[in-house]
Amino acid sequence: MIIDGQHYQSICYDEAKDEVHIIDQTRLPHRFETLTLNSLDQVCHAIAAMQLRGAPLIGVAAAYGMYLALKTDPTQQAQAHARLLATRPTAVNLQWALSRVTAALQGISSEQKAAAALQLARQMEAEDIATCAAIGAAGVSVLRDLWQAKANQDLPLNVLTHCNAGALATVDWGTALAVVYKAAAAGIPLHVWVDETRPRNQGAALTCWELGQQGIAYTLIVDNAGGHLMQQGQVDVCIVGSDRTASNGDVCNKIGTYLKALAANDNNIPFYVALPVSTIDFAIVDGLSQIPIEEREAQEVSHLQGIDATGELRSVRIAPEDAALSNYGFDVTPARLVTGLITEQGVVAATAAGIASLKPAHQGSSE
Amino acid sequence: MIIDGQHYQSICYDEAKDEVHIIDQTRLPHRFETLTLNSLDQVCHAIAAMQLRGAPLIGVAAAYGMYLALKTDPTQQAQAHARLLATRPTAVNLQWALSRVTAALQGISSEQKAAAALQLARQMEAEDIATCAAIGAAGVSVLRDLWQAKANQDLPLNVLTHCNAGALATVDWGTALAVVYKAAAAGIPLHVWVDETRPRNQGAALTCWELGQQGIAYTLIVDNAGGHLMQQGQVDVCIVGSDRTASNGDVCNKIGTYLKALAANDNNIPFYVALPVSTIDFAIVDGLSQIPIEEREAQEVSHLQGIDATGELRSVRIAPEDAALSNYGFDVTPARLVTGLITEQGVVAATAAGIASLKPAHQGSSE
Repeated sequence: MIIDGQHYQSICYDEAKDEVHIIDQTRLPHRFETLTLNSLDQVCHAIAAMQLRGAPLIGVAAAYGMYLALKTDPTQQAQAHARLLATRPTAVNLQWALSRVTAALQGISSEQKAAAALQLARQMEAEDIATCAAIGAAGVSVLRDLWQAKANQDLPLNVLTHCNAGALATVDWGTALAVVYKAAAAGIPLHVWVDETRPRNQGAALTCWELGQQGIAYTLIVDNAGGHLMQQGQVDVCIVGSDRTASNGDVCNKIGTYLKALAANDNNIPFYVALPVSTIDFAIVDGLSQIPIEEREAQEVSHLQGIDATGELRSVRIAPEDAALSNYGFDVTPARLVTGLITEQGVVAATAAGIASLKPAHQGSSE
Repeated sequence: MIIDGQHYQSICYDEAKDEVHIIDQTRLPHRFETLTLNSLDQVCHAIAAMQLRGAPLIGVAAAYGMYLALKTDPTQQAQAHARLLATRPTAVNLQWALSRVTAALQGISSEQKAAAALQLARQMEAEDIATCAAIGAAGVSVLRDLWQAKANQDLPLNVLTHCNAGALATVDWGTALAVVYKAAAAGIPLHVWVDETRPRNQGAALTCWELGQQGIAYTLIVDNAGGHLMQQGQVDVCIVGSDRTASNGDVCNKIGTYLKALAANDNNIPFYVALPVSTIDFAIVDGLSQIPIEEREAQEVSHLQGIDATGELRSVRIAPEDAALSNYGFDVTPARLVTGLITEQGVVAATAAGIASLKPAHQGSSE
């Protein structure tokens, strides 16, 4: 992605310095700061504290975490795997990435493990970029068809998105936003409605910032507003990402996605999910009953971070001090509400048959 | 309502001092402060700046605004009416209250106008309390039936509410929360899921505080969470208020209400709207196309107020400085998604027939 005119990735390995750089997403949109990760501890903290987030990006970060752990101590492979796996329970890419690393290290001698893990992490970094670019390319025809169907083509195609399924959720390009970027590059005029996405405000903080940097027109709305906009004909299509997709097409994504899918369905607006195939959990046959939903710390509900009039980053409490709080991080959108899945292998139906038509992403055993 | 053990109303006329007192709702839940209103300017500011809000409360405040204007200058009746009417475009109670005042002042001599306006304002204050208490009483059987239908009656009845339709939205008792208070007093064990209600956070700031003061168990959630809770069987009933209800049963209420109604419908959860009959706009036959939706200032989306670690009330910006913003204050829930309307005249269907069965509230012409 372009930031202040320069190309950046959300994560990248610096070969000269043998260290991993990430963008600190907890400081955006107010401060653009990068962090250097040199240890397993730092990677675990970065994932758990959401200095980086987004299912695809978490997967790549976990692979680098394995490398950094093994570089220090090649005997701690199992512990490192367990610690990384525990950082975020919902994103299946974490499991997927760690399984790939485990498979790649089978039969490798202790002194070679770190090098093998690094090689795989770098490969996964490169693959993620290619995968996201392919997701974007696959979605262009979806948006072009919708735009061409618009009564007035002088008006932009209005896309609503939830959370951040952008370059910041992946190594580069993004998933839902890759479709937006590729469609914009293909000459389709676009405007994006950005859900604020409480708690943590990934829409307000990350998606707005990212779209602004790429020069895409957008408007920030509260999470409550999307239904009204859809009723009023101000949304042409919804595109969101996914943290885990079941083999029946149920989509687990940031909490609130289900409500937007209901509104899209009620107003005959197409609702697409853009995702790498690595996000599909082929072992789960019913997303609604089987995908574990992460509960995050309650303070994300009672407190918000922002910048005050003096430019200081501050956390403020918005609820009574003794308020009971509940903070589920995700919800599951039933497949019946999903118009289609936009993947690097093409657009498929959110059905068991549609998903069965996809070739599983690199499995651990095939490395 | 009870605040720190003492009885308060959201608005009350102090006869000894001939002034109007309100609770400053922009400071809650962090500071409990009352304000004195002595002029039309102060009333207009209080309504527009939402120092007081809630359709029923706005109506009563507008009546006091007319009194304060006429007390200063009995010739400014038309201007005062116009200024008050312009403060909030969506709440029909404002029109309703002002029409009542206008009708009551017809044929009254200049020197008697202020006294007549005061008498009516005080009457409306008293009526609102009685109306809300009756709404609460009418809703008890709804909640009792739902509670008795629960498989496990050791568990409380889980009520989800949006925004603040409580004592703070009326003179006392509230609408949706009047049902909660009356049901709790009748011995039905209750727990309330409180939607944060962005923007302005009336749920986090007002409903949490108000429920806490009345000793009702509650949990604050983000607006995105309700759908997931409903899917997981954690919500037994939704009850919200209304800013304007059309004669076909369409309900205009705080933005985001429609999304919760969709989720309730998708999960076979009853969705009730509690409202005084004065909130029904009998002239509007189709709420979705005819109710004007207030757009409020954009800063409500980009900025939030809270208390920092030092106890200071601060406004922080959560979005990029140059973000485009949109801020619709309300949405319209189609009548087909509403299980019933809980009014002071009883519970009726959200249909043209149900609404036609209600006796219109005091009309201007009947005063």
